Amino acid sequence: VAVLGVGLLGASFARALRKHSLAEHVSGTGRREENLRRARDLGYIDSYSLSPEEACQDADLVVLAAPVESFTALARKIAPALKKGALLIDVGSVKGRLVRELEGLMPEGVSFVGCHPIAGSERSGIDASSAELFEGAFCVVTPTERTPGEAIEDVVRLWRTLGAQVEVLDPEVHDRVYAVLSHFPHAAAYALAAGAGRLREEHWKFAGQGFLDATRIALSSPELWSNICLLNRENLLACMEAFRSDMDDIRGCLDRSDLEGLKRIFERGQDVRQGLGD
Amino acid sequence: VAVLGVGLLGASFARALRKHSLAEHVSGTGRREENLRRARDLGYIDSYSLSPEEACQDADLVVLAAPVESFTALARKIAPALKKGALLIDVGSVKGRLVRELEGLMPEGVSFVGCHPIAGSERSGIDASSAELFEGAFCVVTPTERTPGEAIEDVVRLWRTLGAQVEVLDPEVHDRVYAVLSHFPHAAAYALAAGAGRLREEHWKFAGQGFLDATRIALSSPELWSNICLLNRENLLACMEAFRSDMDDIRGCLDRSDLEGLKRIFERGQDVRQGLGD
Repeated sequence: VAVLGVGLLGASFARALRKHSLAEHVSGTGRREENLRRARDLGYIDSYSLSPEEACQDADLVVLAAPVESFTALARKIAPALKKGALLIDVGSVKGRLVRELEGLMPEGVSFVGCHPIAGSERSGIDASSAELFEGAFCVVTPTERTPGEAIEDVVRLWRTLGAQVEVLDPEVHDRVYAVLSHFPHAAAYALAAGAGRLREEHWKFAGQGFLDATRIALSSPELWSNICLLNRENLLACMEAFRSDMDDIRGCLDRSDLEGLKRIFERGQDVRQGLGD
Repeated sequence: VAVLGVGLLGASFARALRKHSLAEHVSGTGRREENLRRARDLGYIDSYSLSPEEACQDADLVVLAAPVESFTALARKIAPALKKGALLIDVGSVKGRLVRELEGLMPEGVSFVGCHPIAGSERSGIDASSAELFEGAFCVVTPTERTPGEAIEDVVRLWRTLGAQVEVLDPEVHDRVYAVLSHFPHAAAYALAAGAGRLREEHWKFAGQGFLDATRIALSSPELWSNICLLNRENLLACMEAFRSDMDDIRGCLDRSDLEGLKRIFERGQDVRQGLGD
């Protein structure tokens, strides 16, 4: 197995494979040798190379776990080095067009299956990794009409073995759903948190649990999320438009002191939120 | 002591007084007799009356713990019944003009001191109440230039005895700060949660911890929050304007695929959020 990008998800994946005795040898690659050396010294991977092509040689399974914006360039680079029968998966937060692109880059006899394990958090890096990261987590698998059934089955079985609850979604539907439930909320949380920056710092202590929870995802990596948001921009822009329209309705109620109207808008939000569970 | 409104905060206050042996007799009042009877049967209050004036007679301390939009009418009603030397406090989320108004309604010899214990949650009602609700919680006390020093001291000592960490703020500053840190975030969370309502219900299960946390405050009472938002509308409108401008900046970056610009905006949000702690 080759893990391209040994961060939170890549290292957790490697450790989970080891825990379940699913890999004879795990090689890693990435941009920072220091990180790769540490991953090897900690026993998360068996070997590493700074060359993705080298890391992928002889691999039956290759996992794209680097920053999502690098997937296309990486796939292009490793494609010639992939052996016949190899399987390429990713763990990125964006699917849609990216899945089609990666699929198109695969040589004959190599399958790509898009995967999105919902197991990130505002933490990152190998120190936050865990062999149990995927246990109980959702993993969305996004095959296309061209994905071989056998490859889908292998991937679904793999994630289930690692403890994930697998759901299959069309890549485009995935991106619409996650724009609403994750990508746009991150953008909004950064803006909401920035709002507190307009207060004098002596007043920051008045932020209660509600505000801290509402903006917790703004602790996430701006590097990661700016790339995700750009890769899913059409869906994100649609979310922003819908949200703006809702906020304009709220503003209208405030402007005309319309208590009942405001309450109805809030009730709709509460209704939906109650439907989502705790 | 008279508690006007025996809900989460009123019942918790009564129970906390009892726990610290601070009141000989606690009378309650409210709109629903069934709720008052239950509070008495559970031993949270000693007696109740459906007449606020009656509940306040002979009280040394009267606590406005009813919905915040009813405070002015309630204060007007009970003012003639308050005995000389009595102290009126409230536990509402809005201060500013409301504090000036309530202060102006007090008869000679009665002091009003605005209080905002930050101890609510998305739960409400006496079943969510607790004698320990204020322990470790912030309580913002908002005296004006007319509040007697002795009344301020009494109120500060009282909240400290109940375990709260007391902070003193000007009523207008309070409303600006809480518009940013609480009132606007509630409005935004309702709109964010409503956004998920645009998805097919079969996709709601893909909401991860990040979305659930970001929208947790949308579980709060629409009745309560629509009233708070209207009472603090000027500050709320200013927040909405600032937020809209930030969201427009994000949209601009998406429109022109400006990764660096987007990252900078997200970094600013992350910076502020990190400054707020966990």
